[in-house]
Amino acid sequence: MSETFAALANRTRRAILARLVEGEANVNDLAEPFDMTLPAISKHIKVLERAGLVVRGQRAQYRPCSLDAAPLEEISTWAEQYRPIWEARFDRMNDYLTQLQPQDRENVRDA
Amino acid sequence: MSETFAALANRTRRAILARLVEGEANVNDLAEPFDMTLPAISKHIKVLERAGLVVRGQRAQYRPCSLDAAPLEEISTWAEQYRPIWEARFDRMNDYLTQLQPQDRENVRDA
Repeated sequence: MSETFAALANRTRRAILARLVEGEANVNDLAEPFDMTLPAISKHIKVLERAGLVVRGQRAQYRPCSLDAAPLEEISTWAEQYRPIWEARFDRMNDYLTQLQPQDRENVRDA
Repeated sequence: MSETFAALANRTRRAILARLVEGEANVNDLAEPFDMTLPAISKHIKVLERAGLVVRGQRAQYRPCSLDAAPLEEISTWAEQYRPIWEARFDRMNDYLTQLQPQDRENVRDA
């Protein structure tokens, strides 16, 4: 899971994953929206591949990249363990707003 | 969000967050389960603090650490965007198993 988190700790790599939701793409396609060299993009793709987030096709000349979302499910499941914590925080904020007088409440909301 | 992902890309730091679910703790408490020096643990805590996952108390001698799960909610929301992708994958596997003859299905399951 450390490898998945490390792969996701980069805006370009997250943008590549978002692009792959639309379907498979080759390195040139993936490089297109970025002001980056092809080797730089290839390096990002290799990091995503090692983390199991990107799979390369096997066709000889054309090895398109596609998304494997399985590691993202693992990340989501891991983060969801903490849902009671962030919801408790939200509930406390809600209780606080409910306890305020209507006048104060408006001030808080306008702040 | 890159900073949050980078902070989570380490097993010890994830274990520190899990410990803080039980309540606030000082650096000594947090170091206890690990075979690590206090400075090494402090360094991990600083990474978590910079990512907004850990908050330090303000009391003079005793500055306990507590968990702030807000960045984890952000991570979860981000990963959940990909749920249709991993669910489609699961559905395809299910369709495949349903289409197999009962005999083949047992072979797949036993494999």
